[in-house]
Amino acid sequence: MVGPELQRLMMYLSKLPGLGPRSGRRCALHLIKHKDPLMLHLIDALKEAAEKIQTCQICYNLDTSQPCSVCNNPKRDQHTLCIVEDVADLWALERSQIFYGRYFVLGGLLSALEGIRPEDLHIPELVARVTQENIEEVILALSATVDGQTTGHVITADLKKTGVKVTALSHGIPIGGELDYLDDGTLNTAFQGRRLV
Amino acid sequence: MVGPELQRLMMYLSKLPGLGPRSGRRCALHLIKHKDPLMLHLIDALKEAAEKIQTCQICYNLDTSQPCSVCNNPKRDQHTLCIVEDVADLWALERSQIFYGRYFVLGGLLSALEGIRPEDLHIPELVARVTQENIEEVILALSATVDGQTTGHVITADLKKTGVKVTALSHGIPIGGELDYLDDGTLNTAFQGRRLV
Repeated sequence: MVGPELQRLMMYLSKLPGLGPRSGRRCALHLIKHKDPLMLHLIDALKEAAEKIQTCQICYNLDTSQPCSVCNNPKRDQHTLCIVEDVADLWALERSQIFYGRYFVLGGLLSALEGIRPEDLHIPELVARVTQENIEEVILALSATVDGQTTGHVITADLKKTGVKVTALSHGIPIGGELDYLDDGTLNTAFQGRRLV
Repeated sequence: MVGPELQRLMMYLSKLPGLGPRSGRRCALHLIKHKDPLMLHLIDALKEAAEKIQTCQICYNLDTSQPCSVCNNPKRDQHTLCIVEDVADLWALERSQIFYGRYFVLGGLLSALEGIRPEDLHIPELVARVTQENIEEVILALSATVDGQTTGHVITADLKKTGVKVTALSHGIPIGGELDYLDDGTLNTAFQGRRLV
């Protein structure tokens, strides 16, 4: 049988998102077989990340500096704030290089079912930040799901008293999407949102 | 953008088998978000495995003891030797608890294309072991692929002079397999290998 050290390693690897017992085993074996070029470097990278990376106290991004490199960057537009659900969404927007303002990471979406309330998503802090800073536009970059839309509505309502302009990303046919592969919901949204050309 | 520490972590995670840049990012984020219950434990488990696990000098299994716990176990049948391609195959057989003999891990299959020769798979060591030890049966538990079968043939030929009995796992319809989903090769093998009932 496999020893307890290996079993422990497999167990933790299998808890990574997208992995299960089988792929956890496979990864463990791969790591042990590639100790020098991969396993030891991965240990170092994990240790360094665990030690250095922290949550930004302004926008809840993850970074090695406090505040994070986005909040810290004076070149970025200080008047536009983009609301995202998760740090992964922030990274996706950063990769696409389409947004040069600042962010606010909710860390989730409102959900009555899972008991996630506005306080859990720092929405009061968001309202306070919009009130204090000279923010002109809040862009809701949330998922086009029921929870995403509900969260967007709640944020819009909470921000109403601040008088800030609140916008949301458009919904419709994704670029490269073929009509006959799209679901009815997307088609419906795209029709409702049709524009003069 | 994402800092160099995170980028390094993502890069090494994306090199794990079955992961790519996207799932590497996802895993990195998951680990940082679950630092205490997962990331720190994973670091410990990796460190312990990197330090303690070694290749068994008798059968090339991976274990924390030298020789490995299978070779070391006096209760296991010393007269039967099962040849597997990889440590993962050894683990699969151990999980199924169908074999109580000892193993020999080749660490690959012969391949003219990839330049893998008998010496690379310790086949001379295998012949020496069979000659020296009182082994009565060598079971070839290799993949039913061209390389697996070639390797089996070479091992059988090399072991001929030792006079040991060489057997191979049977091929045919897998249990639970439905006939009309099987490929022609398997059907053909199952017909060729039909037995009186």
